[in-house]
Amino acid sequence: MSTTQDLSRLSINQRTVKQLSVPELADGCARLGIPGVGLWREPVQELGVEAAAKAVRDAGLSVTSLCRGGFFTSEDPAERARALDDNRRAIDETAGLGAPELCLVSGGLPAGSRDVDGARERVVDALAELAPYAAEHGVRLCVEALHPMFASDRCVVTTLGQSLDIAERFPAEQVGVMVDAYHIWWDPQVWEQIRRAGEGGRISCYQISDWVTPLPEGVLLGRGQIGDGCIELRRMREAVDAVGYAGRPIEVEIFNPGLWERDGFAVLREIAERYSAHVL
Amino acid sequence: MSTTQDLSRLSINQRTVKQLSVPELADGCARLGIPGVGLWREPVQELGVEAAAKAVRDAGLSVTSLCRGGFFTSEDPAERARALDDNRRAIDETAGLGAPELCLVSGGLPAGSRDVDGARERVVDALAELAPYAAEHGVRLCVEALHPMFASDRCVVTTLGQSLDIAERFPAEQVGVMVDAYHIWWDPQVWEQIRRAGEGGRISCYQISDWVTPLPEGVLLGRGQIGDGCIELRRMREAVDAVGYAGRPIEVEIFNPGLWERDGFAVLREIAERYSAHVL
Repeated sequence: MSTTQDLSRLSINQRTVKQLSVPELADGCARLGIPGVGLWREPVQELGVEAAAKAVRDAGLSVTSLCRGGFFTSEDPAERARALDDNRRAIDETAGLGAPELCLVSGGLPAGSRDVDGARERVVDALAELAPYAAEHGVRLCVEALHPMFASDRCVVTTLGQSLDIAERFPAEQVGVMVDAYHIWWDPQVWEQIRRAGEGGRISCYQISDWVTPLPEGVLLGRGQIGDGCIELRRMREAVDAVGYAGRPIEVEIFNPGLWERDGFAVLREIAERYSAHVL
Repeated sequence: MSTTQDLSRLSINQRTVKQLSVPELADGCARLGIPGVGLWREPVQELGVEAAAKAVRDAGLSVTSLCRGGFFTSEDPAERARALDDNRRAIDETAGLGAPELCLVSGGLPAGSRDVDGARERVVDALAELAPYAAEHGVRLCVEALHPMFASDRCVVTTLGQSLDIAERFPAEQVGVMVDAYHIWWDPQVWEQIRRAGEGGRISCYQISDWVTPLPEGVLLGRGQIGDGCIELRRMREAVDAVGYAGRPIEVEIFNPGLWERDGFAVLREIAERYSAHVL
């Protein structure tokens, strides 16, 4: 590892090294000079929000985002009410961690449904209920477009442009968008939509991983280590930076069982190297 | 099977029932009153173009499209020249079958490349070389957008809008686009792009299958039987019909090993039933 690495913007999403607990992740990042972590609700809840916040703070780090709220698409009123309640708790947790952004995976089609328009409308309706609550707690909601291969079962929001269409119905300080390289790299409109997101002050978070094939069964856990795939990660970093994101966190989020089987600290070190080689 | 089925627009893509030879497919379709077939080059070449054409004609059917040309993205001049030659042969075969349209899968990124813009430019360059040759032979080139999960390894053209951006550089009688429900259903712009395709006289072919999850490893063979998934197939049929496609072929193309293991004729009968129930 070169001593000239500038890791000042790097953040590690915990799911990338889920073999590490929150304190272990914070400690490992601190030793490598990585200043940020992205957390997930389940391990935070296990540890307790205050303890997790303290572990990160004591290591001298900050929490760049919390994953995840969302799943807004149910047609059942009781299930919908439960989802909104759960999202209010997620907002509380985000505030408790001192994280600025809560990532939202909007939800797929309800079982048996073909009504994608209806599901998309319910996403907007849920944001309308949650955005003021989030704003009162100093949290911005971050609408994430997932790759279209997840459209039916995870997220009916499939492009950066569509996430902006949704976010722009709300004040920019209340609702932003995720720019996740893995989910949007294939989009012929990606560069113009990144420009639009930046110029509107809507970029909540920039996440990276790499696109590799063949995709595994279920496609969820097929993300590649930085540099192993075909995404123009440096170009995309330059594109977000050019529209106001310069200096802000770059969060590495890789779902890959191959990384989970290895020593977590070694994975962190490799990410720092790959980040320096392929992103900076 | 009801006797009131109107199958006058139905076409079966051979890959859907690849256990059937071209003559068996033609015979099975004729027995069920299905008037069209979509063919693939390999089985046609095995049988010979003239014999394949005769088998379809003798059964009283027509060939609605030939799959497939394309794979235009190589950076190597020799490989590129081979691809263009092969596409000229595919055009000859399409003409020999009396099919109006040659389907094109544009190709993915060359091994190790991250230059998706460059790959897309090479697709346009190849079309410029091939379109006049195709037109001389009475064949229209049909640019197909594949689902973005195939962007790196099969097709850098990922949306209907992008396929139109490409096709519109050429005369409408020379280059059209595929509307394939499976590949585009998730797109928030799908309805406006179908309208654009129809109003410009660009719809070469309408293909259907259904979107089901979980996707299998490699994702290629995960298409669902009509009605088993979440695509609004009736709405999409009405949408293409409303912009000039009424009366033209609706080609069923399903890649699914579960269908290949069954009796081919039984699969054809099931498709006719599903088509009547979910598409008409």
